[in-house]
Amino acid sequence: MNQLLETRVDGRATGEQWPLDRGLQYGDGLFETMLARNGRVRFEALHRARLQEGCGRLGIAADLARVWDEARQLAAKHGNAVLRLQITRGTALVRGYTPTGREQARSILAVFTPPSVTDIPTRLRVLTLRNRLGENPDLAGLKHCNRLEQVLARQAMTGKDAFEGLLASSSGLLISGTMSNVFLELDGQVVTPAMDRCGVAGILRAVVLREAAHAGTPALVAQLPIEALQRATALALSNARLGLVMADELDGRNLAHSTRLAALAARVASLED
Amino acid sequence: MNQLLETRVDGRATGEQWPLDRGLQYGDGLFETMLARNGRVRFEALHRARLQEGCGRLGIAADLARVWDEARQLAAKHGNAVLRLQITRGTALVRGYTPTGREQARSILAVFTPPSVTDIPTRLRVLTLRNRLGENPDLAGLKHCNRLEQVLARQAMTGKDAFEGLLASSSGLLISGTMSNVFLELDGQVVTPAMDRCGVAGILRAVVLREAAHAGTPALVAQLPIEALQRATALALSNARLGLVMADELDGRNLAHSTRLAALAARVASLED
Repeated sequence: MNQLLETRVDGRATGEQWPLDRGLQYGDGLFETMLARNGRVRFEALHRARLQEGCGRLGIAADLARVWDEARQLAAKHGNAVLRLQITRGTALVRGYTPTGREQARSILAVFTPPSVTDIPTRLRVLTLRNRLGENPDLAGLKHCNRLEQVLARQAMTGKDAFEGLLASSSGLLISGTMSNVFLELDGQVVTPAMDRCGVAGILRAVVLREAAHAGTPALVAQLPIEALQRATALALSNARLGLVMADELDGRNLAHSTRLAALAARVASLED
Repeated sequence: MNQLLETRVDGRATGEQWPLDRGLQYGDGLFETMLARNGRVRFEALHRARLQEGCGRLGIAADLARVWDEARQLAAKHGNAVLRLQITRGTALVRGYTPTGREQARSILAVFTPPSVTDIPTRLRVLTLRNRLGENPDLAGLKHCNRLEQVLARQAMTGKDAFEGLLASSSGLLISGTMSNVFLELDGQVVTPAMDRCGVAGILRAVVLREAAHAGTPALVAQLPIEALQRATALALSNARLGLVMADELDGRNLAHSTRLAALAARVASLED
């Protein structure tokens, strides 16, 4: 039953395995975007823990020790770079959504040039988007490969002269940017949205939360209605590539300079682990 | 900025393009699962229309005329088969979610052996699953490649001796099975869930709705709370591979034989377009 008879890619017959990779068919995989800095994978332990948790929750059995050895080698080789590590469940052994459990996980490591100072605009503008994120606690927090919502959100920003767009979930909760987590200063308190219904639990977000606690001024994790943005006095975005960066403008409104967020950003910038 | 330095697959350096296909990275693509019957693609016009709509909504520019020529050739060659046609946005030209609009869409056509009578169990059992589907109207209806929810749902059925599992959305609406649309007999009326918040608007579902109307006994499309299943007297599942098939049991409860659903199934079974 369901035996493969032939495969064609762009009109040409092929006997290769990758066209039937479940990552390609269903986005059935996970990825990590990491910074290599001074020859090391920055925050490696945190990236490893998230990837391992993701493999566990999706039931993907991968030889992660080998993959992390390779990631370390690439970091040492390139010194400063962006590493994109992807794990897929591997080539489908039968047609359909059900994994057999006998697939061979596939790893893809791509190395890119490091971020440059010009990646962040001198005036950082943020928009609130009308796109919404579907809520699914079973997938929430993971950096999995089902990212069409982010693709559509980025397309919605075309021609809008904004660095990042903020997204609410289907029930109206503020979740994150399209490519970053978000920290708000709200009523004098630093707050970041909970990632229990949707969104990616970013590694830099975890570092910021940890460092805020270490500094004796903990940040709150809360369910925030998207309307809370209107009361935010300051806003910062976090991801592995950029660190914690301050937004200057939200939906055309000037934001304040937050000494607390700026101090957190400086503290995080100096860390390697 | 963001220049690719090198790529490795399973530990080996490669210069190939496919490891950076956005379909693989983000599930950034669409697919159609179709039946080839007597040398023709069954319901070809409906599959073409859905794929074209999907490409439009995702902003993927593909040479669909060529792809459909190829699908037709494969149907003629194999006579009876299952065809899986996938379109991805193609290889990423830069890192990140934003498409440049200059990607070259990729097509993958895989041919499988046709369904056999043993694919459908003699007693067809259906379960209601606890998994939920995230709601996103921008993606609803499309057969896109973000299918981790379906993968998790199939995994949740492991060891449960059921043919199909039914899923509600995050707000508690009945949507579909993991691989099929669903038709209920409810208060003497045939009803199928609306696909405006999530779910795939199946080709067979469209055919069943069309044929019910032609037969003078229209089926309703409605927003149904998942609890409506408890009142359903009969249940049928539809997909392109299997047609419209009757369920015998729902969550351990025997279902009635519905003469209306059976008549619809027979009517649909004889159609080619």
